[in-house]
Amino acid sequence: MKITLIGSGNVAYHLAKMMMQNNLPISQIFGRNEVALKSISEEMKIPYSTQILEEADLYIISVKDSAVEEISTLIKNPNTLVVHTSGSLPMEILKGNYRKGVFYPLQTFSKTKALDYTKIPFFIETENPNDEEILTEVAKKVSGKVSIANSERRKHLHLAAVFSCNFVNHLFTRAKEITDNQGIPFEYLIPLVEETIEKIRTIEPKLAQTGPAVRNDQKVMDIHRELIHSDEVLELYNTLNNSILKMYHKDY
Amino acid sequence: MKITLIGSGNVAYHLAKMMMQNNLPISQIFGRNEVALKSISEEMKIPYSTQILEEADLYIISVKDSAVEEISTLIKNPNTLVVHTSGSLPMEILKGNYRKGVFYPLQTFSKTKALDYTKIPFFIETENPNDEEILTEVAKKVSGKVSIANSERRKHLHLAAVFSCNFVNHLFTRAKEITDNQGIPFEYLIPLVEETIEKIRTIEPKLAQTGPAVRNDQKVMDIHRELIHSDEVLELYNTLNNSILKMYHKDY
Repeated sequence: MKITLIGSGNVAYHLAKMMMQNNLPISQIFGRNEVALKSISEEMKIPYSTQILEEADLYIISVKDSAVEEISTLIKNPNTLVVHTSGSLPMEILKGNYRKGVFYPLQTFSKTKALDYTKIPFFIETENPNDEEILTEVAKKVSGKVSIANSERRKHLHLAAVFSCNFVNHLFTRAKEITDNQGIPFEYLIPLVEETIEKIRTIEPKLAQTGPAVRNDQKVMDIHRELIHSDEVLELYNTLNNSILKMYHKDY
Repeated sequence: MKITLIGSGNVAYHLAKMMMQNNLPISQIFGRNEVALKSISEEMKIPYSTQILEEADLYIISVKDSAVEEISTLIKNPNTLVVHTSGSLPMEILKGNYRKGVFYPLQTFSKTKALDYTKIPFFIETENPNDEEILTEVAKKVSGKVSIANSERRKHLHLAAVFSCNFVNHLFTRAKEITDNQGIPFEYLIPLVEETIEKIRTIEPKLAQTGPAVRNDQKVMDIHRELIHSDEVLELYNTLNNSILKMYHKDY
């Protein structure tokens, strides 16, 4: 099977790496960012192009969501399977006369950070049952965790991922602002963060909630608000506390 | 040294356990909640009382913040050291003629969840340098990580802890609501959550940010907003996105 990968961002980089490592050679990587393409091409010995998209049996489009539709029109061969890797886009965003599918890895990817690919859940959607088998086989070569999910399910998964990864990382960023401003090493918080994650393996997160808001401790929250001198951070603080208060205290 | 522990909540429970395990016998646990006291007393073979507070060299007050001041007035002996374990309260909340201090473990405690105590950072504050030595020695028997921190520093630490633990856990709770509503196993998100934490060990959280808001991908954010049917969740979603947008996009 000839596979072409389109894109050179974080997801494309790791898809290329996981496929090359698992006996799924990529024939070409294609995209607009020549610097990024060249770097992947050199690291993984994959030919690249910014101009000519070669024929393939499977095209994996892994570019930013807003570019998927336009890129998908470049593929003219009807006897091919074209998939995108986005959590939020429907399969139908792909515009062409080919067989369509989605190949969504639920993970956060940074180029500089190695990953255990076998732990990544892959979610697959296809127009045709045959293609479901093909994509499942491809995903299973990389990861043990492969599921079928339609667009509706995938969108909700992506939303849950935004809450539990993107937003969580932003809270770490805000916490580090606070410790940085006080000259406190952020490392002090790491055991706490580890335990926060460790807990949800064994306790329902709703039951694991601690802190001033779940205790409705207004005095402590007032003390905290006095320490905050940024509008954004104060709004974060109040909104998160309100959401906790509303969940655990009926009179809110 | 005779140690008395006051309180029977999550923090008191774990303080009792870590001290008993590390050759720091507690002579008495004292408090109002007889059921909880009795359970700790039976598990760890510590005498308890709800009525008579025995003489001790060190009293550790580990009750909810709003009760610390009142409880602290019960101790009449001037030749004793009295500490509280709160992140937000000043040392001066302790009202009595004794030597005062703070003994703050930066961790999230649930009774049902075992913990590696050696990893917990302890922050100490005392009126007298001598007592600083005493508390440091006590903390070092339990954990390798003992620091001195005044009330101002400790308050900021606690605020950072609220962001990186309490608020993070609430986001997990909201993410689980989303997956529960769709009949999707929450376990699918665990590798993502693990990687989110794994990342901040090696990458500055500000640089590790991924997701629609940091890319200013309004289309995806619109798709997500359509999936949310609760006012609190929508406000969380918008507030967190705004905070990310303001941090990474100057025109916000």
